[in-house]
Amino acid sequence: MKAIVKVEPREGAQLMNVADPPSPVSDQVLVKVKATSICGTDYHIHSWDAWSSRRVKPPRIMGHEFAGTVVAIGPEVSRARVGDYVSGESHWVCGLCLQCRSGQKHVCENTRILGVDVDGCFAEYVTVPEGSSWPNDPSVPAEIACIQDPLGNAIHAALAGEIIGRSVAVLGCGPIGIFAVAVARACGARRVFATDAKPYRLALAEKLGADAVFDVTTGDAGAFFSKVTNGLGVDVVLEMSGAVSAIRQAMEIARPGGRVSLMGIPTAEVSLDISSMIFKGLDVQCIVGRRLYETWDTMKGLLTGGRLDVAPVITHRLGFDEYDRGMALMRDGLCGKVVFEL
Amino acid sequence: MKAIVKVEPREGAQLMNVADPPSPVSDQVLVKVKATSICGTDYHIHSWDAWSSRRVKPPRIMGHEFAGTVVAIGPEVSRARVGDYVSGESHWVCGLCLQCRSGQKHVCENTRILGVDVDGCFAEYVTVPEGSSWPNDPSVPAEIACIQDPLGNAIHAALAGEIIGRSVAVLGCGPIGIFAVAVARACGARRVFATDAKPYRLALAEKLGADAVFDVTTGDAGAFFSKVTNGLGVDVVLEMSGAVSAIRQAMEIARPGGRVSLMGIPTAEVSLDISSMIFKGLDVQCIVGRRLYETWDTMKGLLTGGRLDVAPVITHRLGFDEYDRGMALMRDGLCGKVVFEL
Amino acid sequence: MKAIVKVEPREGAQLMNVADPPSPVSDQVLVKVKATSICGTDYHIHSWDAWSSRRVKPPRIMGHEFAGTVVAIGPEVSRARVGDYVSGESHWVCGLCLQCRSGQKHVCENTRILGVDVDGCFAEYVTVPEGSSWPNDPSVPAEIACIQDPLGNAIHAALAGEIIGRSVAVLGCGPIGIFAVAVARACGARRVFATDAKPYRLALAEKLGADAVFDVTTGDAGAFFSKVTNGLGVDVVLEMSGAVSAIRQAMEIARPGGRVSLMGIPTAEVSLDISSMIFKGLDVQCIVGRRLYETWDTMKGLLTGGRLDVAPVITHRLGFDEYDRGMALMRDGLCGKVVFEL
Amino acid sequence: MKAIVKVEPREGAQLMNVADPPSPVSDQVLVKVKATSICGTDYHIHSWDAWSSRRVKPPRIMGHEFAGTVVAIGPEVSRARVGDYVSGESHWVCGLCLQCRSGQKHVCENTRILGVDVDGCFAEYVTVPEGSSWPNDPSVPAEIACIQDPLGNAIHAALAGEIIGRSVAVLGCGPIGIFAVAVARACGARRVFATDAKPYRLALAEKLGADAVFDVTTGDAGAFFSKVTNGLGVDVVLEMSGAVSAIRQAMEIARPGGRVSLMGIPTAEVSLDISSMIFKGLDVQCIVGRRLYETWDTMKGLLTGGRLDVAPVITHRLGFDEYDRGMALMRDGLCGKVVFEL
Repeated sequence: MKAIVKVEPREGAQLMNVADPPSPVSDQVLVKVKATSICGTDYHIHSWDAWSSRRVKPPRIMGHEFAGTVVAIGPEVSRARVGDYVSGESHWVCGLCLQCRSGQKHVCENTRILGVDVDGCFAEYVTVPEGSSWPNDPSVPAEIACIQDPLGNAIHAALAGEIIGRSVAVLGCGPIGIFAVAVARACGARRVFATDAKPYRLALAEKLGADAVFDVTTGDAGAFFSKVTNGLGVDVVLEMSGAVSAIRQAMEIARPGGRVSLMGIPTAEVSLDISSMIFKGLDVQCIVGRRLYETWDTMKGLLTGGRLDVAPVITHRLGFDEYDRGMALMRDGLCGKVVFEL
Repeated sequence: MKAIVKVEPREGAQLMNVADPPSPVSDQVLVKVKATSICGTDYHIHSWDAWSSRRVKPPRIMGHEFAGTVVAIGPEVSRARVGDYVSGESHWVCGLCLQCRSGQKHVCENTRILGVDVDGCFAEYVTVPEGSSWPNDPSVPAEIACIQDPLGNAIHAALAGEIIGRSVAVLGCGPIGIFAVAVARACGARRVFATDAKPYRLALAEKLGADAVFDVTTGDAGAFFSKVTNGLGVDVVLEMSGAVSAIRQAMEIARPGGRVSLMGIPTAEVSLDISSMIFKGLDVQCIVGRRLYETWDTMKGLLTGGRLDVAPVITHRLGFDEYDRGMALMRDGLCGKVVFEL
Repeated sequence: MKAIVKVEPREGAQLMNVADPPSPVSDQVLVKVKATSICGTDYHIHSWDAWSSRRVKPPRIMGHEFAGTVVAIGPEVSRARVGDYVSGESHWVCGLCLQCRSGQKHVCENTRILGVDVDGCFAEYVTVPEGSSWPNDPSVPAEIACIQDPLGNAIHAALAGEIIGRSVAVLGCGPIGIFAVAVARACGARRVFATDAKPYRLALAEKLGADAVFDVTTGDAGAFFSKVTNGLGVDVVLEMSGAVSAIRQAMEIARPGGRVSLMGIPTAEVSLDISSMIFKGLDVQCIVGRRLYETWDTMKGLLTGGRLDVAPVITHRLGFDEYDRGMALMRDGLCGKVVFEL
Repeated sequence: MKAIVKVEPREGAQLMNVADPPSPVSDQVLVKVKATSICGTDYHIHSWDAWSSRRVKPPRIMGHEFAGTVVAIGPEVSRARVGDYVSGESHWVCGLCLQCRSGQKHVCENTRILGVDVDGCFAEYVTVPEGSSWPNDPSVPAEIACIQDPLGNAIHAALAGEIIGRSVAVLGCGPIGIFAVAVARACGARRVFATDAKPYRLALAEKLGADAVFDVTTGDAGAFFSKVTNGLGVDVVLEMSGAVSAIRQAMEIARPGGRVSLMGIPTAEVSLDISSMIFKGLDVQCIVGRRLYETWDTMKGLLTGGRLDVAPVITHRLGFDEYDRGMALMRDGLCGKVVFEL
């Protein structure tokens, strides 16, 4: 089959023919991929940054976001059937550690990641455990069904506390930030505000439902948030940029008693005015992954019948042979989600 | 001033001139009423049922749902100002009992009710404690601002547990049930189903966003719910009818692990299959009033800028001189909310 | 090996030699049983009541509460090791249904029960899936480790809402009720009250920490609860008896805004004054099983180092050859937990 | 009456005769003080640090922690009666701001503090609003009833998430830290660990129930916590020291999915490894004050009948004439709580 493979421990990857996957054993399901999308993590592996050079062992088929059809099942599979329309949770968890058994599988200490630690889904077929597959509602098109990993990140962050009737600030309008704008709107947020440094992304945020956006290169975001909240401060801040300045600002714009959900990963330590944060009684949540599988079920509910429409976030639909173009788009940030259609 | 007064301890009430209210003392605010709406409780007082004949001491100005403008304030008022646009919470609570001090003011043991225990708002002016007034967002029209007491009931019931992405059944489409349909839709429910015995009300429910409705006089509601949930059962059941049969059915249609919020008041005891409820692990919530004032703040968020549009529920706009017609509409159930405009 | 087997579809069971269990396959672990205890369910199967005659297919090795040592593991076991000291959750869940994937495995729609649907632990060895085994803290003796299924019921019920600093009523002092008394005490309840119809059980409840007990055959339990709460009502009611009268009373003695957790299974429908329950704003929870595995982890925390001491509930320690005596004790209710020691 | 007064805007304060308080007006209650204790804030005002010199306007009667008897009530008082045994919440809140109306009075934007913004309780009598007074259970002695403000801080921090069955680390064993140790024990924590730099305080922590303590001047606290948790990390970290190094360490010792409650106020910004915190999915809570009045009700439950025994924390009982000695004890940190008895 065709697959995009990280062949060597250096920058780049290549589309090539590889052996077809073996028949599924144990509780595995074999999925024929219909759509798969590029994550920032894939770009990191492509460019072979410090993290990926430590973690990934080439050769490795890349990719972890997909939707497709089950074409074969292992002997211990209990519910999946050939023909099922599924997506996959990229974090394969052990189910047995303290975290897994405390309803916190998203921080399983034995997590393996599809396309990172095992062969991924930038391929015609992918093999996953039944328990890491997710049955999709037929009303959801494959190009949407394949982006549920990052959409799930946004839902996990947005719904980690009350959001109905709350004012919401989204800092950073990469794909997950833009998803968060749409999710907040669909879930009854009072007002949704978004910031970024790129007009292209802010325009996408507005298209997905932001009530007001602010380009942080043009002035003081703090003044912007004070004005749009009548000086009260923001109820819920979703930090999606990973920028040190934005993380600091998240704490400042949140109202007393407010919530800050941190999802963007900074590359350096961040100095915080803990004293002010305490006097404001902030609730600061560090958000990783998705709740397995509470987030997925909520996501199914939001996607079913078009309740939540994130189609405009998909800005590019490519073939595997346009892989290099896809990575260039990721590098330049001039895209929402880039989807490979098979 | 003009006011609708329960003059005698028997059926009926009359529009008459009464003394203007005195200047506000202590922490009182005096409100010029712009809009006030009829609640089922007002109809009970009008028709002088068993409950009202025990509780209400005529003469009493009726009415407890209103919106208006502050025209005078008492000396200990701290934030309200003349000119403020306010509504009122009809339940005046003590703030000092165990419930009040445990975040459960909606079950304060010393509650007094406007228009029931003290003179109400079917009048040109009404006097309320500052703490029972609520500042409205200017974008909300008075005819909507005046119905926040029952809208708050619906929000309290709908949001007493998770609703985002959940399937929701609303049993009983009186005004509060119809509000609940709209609230569930605005808050990201997966699918919203509604039942009633009157086609008029089911049509309103559809107008407010119900995905499917069922007339309980035409067949088996259980089969309807099984079909629309693919046999899974309903995630969240909001019982708004008070019908004994509906309360029983609520327990049957809820899925294992589901939630049932009971708000409709039955007039007789209800026999329940507790054994099945336990094996299903149901969460059964008995809902009364509104959270003071968490529900009001969420409601402000949902109403601000038209996020939640409940205008279609207001089916009649009358003057005080059409009081008798308003009560006839309530009696016949051929209305959503009936609002008096001043 | 020796095992107590339900041989025929009629009353009774017998200790006999059966084939040793085969080597564990897949993700199974084989456990050498050190202690196993009798549950009310075992008594129902023994006496062959309506439920068990519908559900159990003889021949079947009985028993589902145990502690022991892993002596062999299947090839797909990932964490368990020979020599591990484990107990078992009797409810084997599918992990894939809506409930399992929503953090509600205790209401899995595909639950199989050890000793009911598959061969159980009234035997020298028992085979269970790794995921249904639970590693015990070494400080917990086997006779305590084997009773974690019912102790977990009590913990699930008691901790299904706030309990720290709350007044607690336990209605029904069978083993799970008595466990609930001890759990409430260990978790900082304000006052713990218990009722039953048998002085033997009330004495056990006092031994486990009840502050006041009431024999319901001697007078009005409502007056008792009013007196001990200074007329405020009880914060948290744990209904463990399944008696129709107690379920009704649970709703009456709970304070406005209080919680009622129903765990005892009544054999008939129960007529309830839903109207009063709504005006009180009660939270009524239907409790089944244990949270998998949140309850088990909390239980480990409470048992570790003797924080929670439930040893006095174990009133009888028998050998398998005293099986008939054990069942007679269960029938007469003159016992706490009856443990078989191997 | 006698009172300790901050007379001049410089270091020190003095015991002097001042005018008796006037009769209570409005909703005020006049309390005869039986016991009052010294808080770190009082020491800051005494030593006239930067914060107090900005905020406090002499002359001002100091003190905000007290217990006593109501001796007179204002005309609008509704429940308090002469003879009531009460303590006081030092944070007087407005009840009307967004925070107050959202169940977050502890971050009211209009808070006034007893003994800081209004005359305090280091006096024979103190006047407070009825709504800021709290009725004590008669079983609680005055020396305990007067320290509920800081005990409430500890309860608010400890119970801001799940604690039953959890491992708990308390960083910093000043009075609030030591209270937190006792609270965690009383509420069923699995294991309670405590650190400090002073052996005197660690000995107190052990007396109040710490299972293991560590002197941070003697080695690596990280290694200590790793060892006592078998490498799993701590479930719940309560940071009570305000030390920059301890705040950083709190994030490191918390297990994936763990909780960190920050209450100690650092005097500088703190640099944090946000990236690691996100990958661990930490829940970081900034804790200030007490929940009004949920924390107080829980505290009453824990104190009633001696469930929670914090008497050993009271190390010194002085008269007002020993004020200077009390402040010296505070300066040297060689005390738990210092109480003035009248």
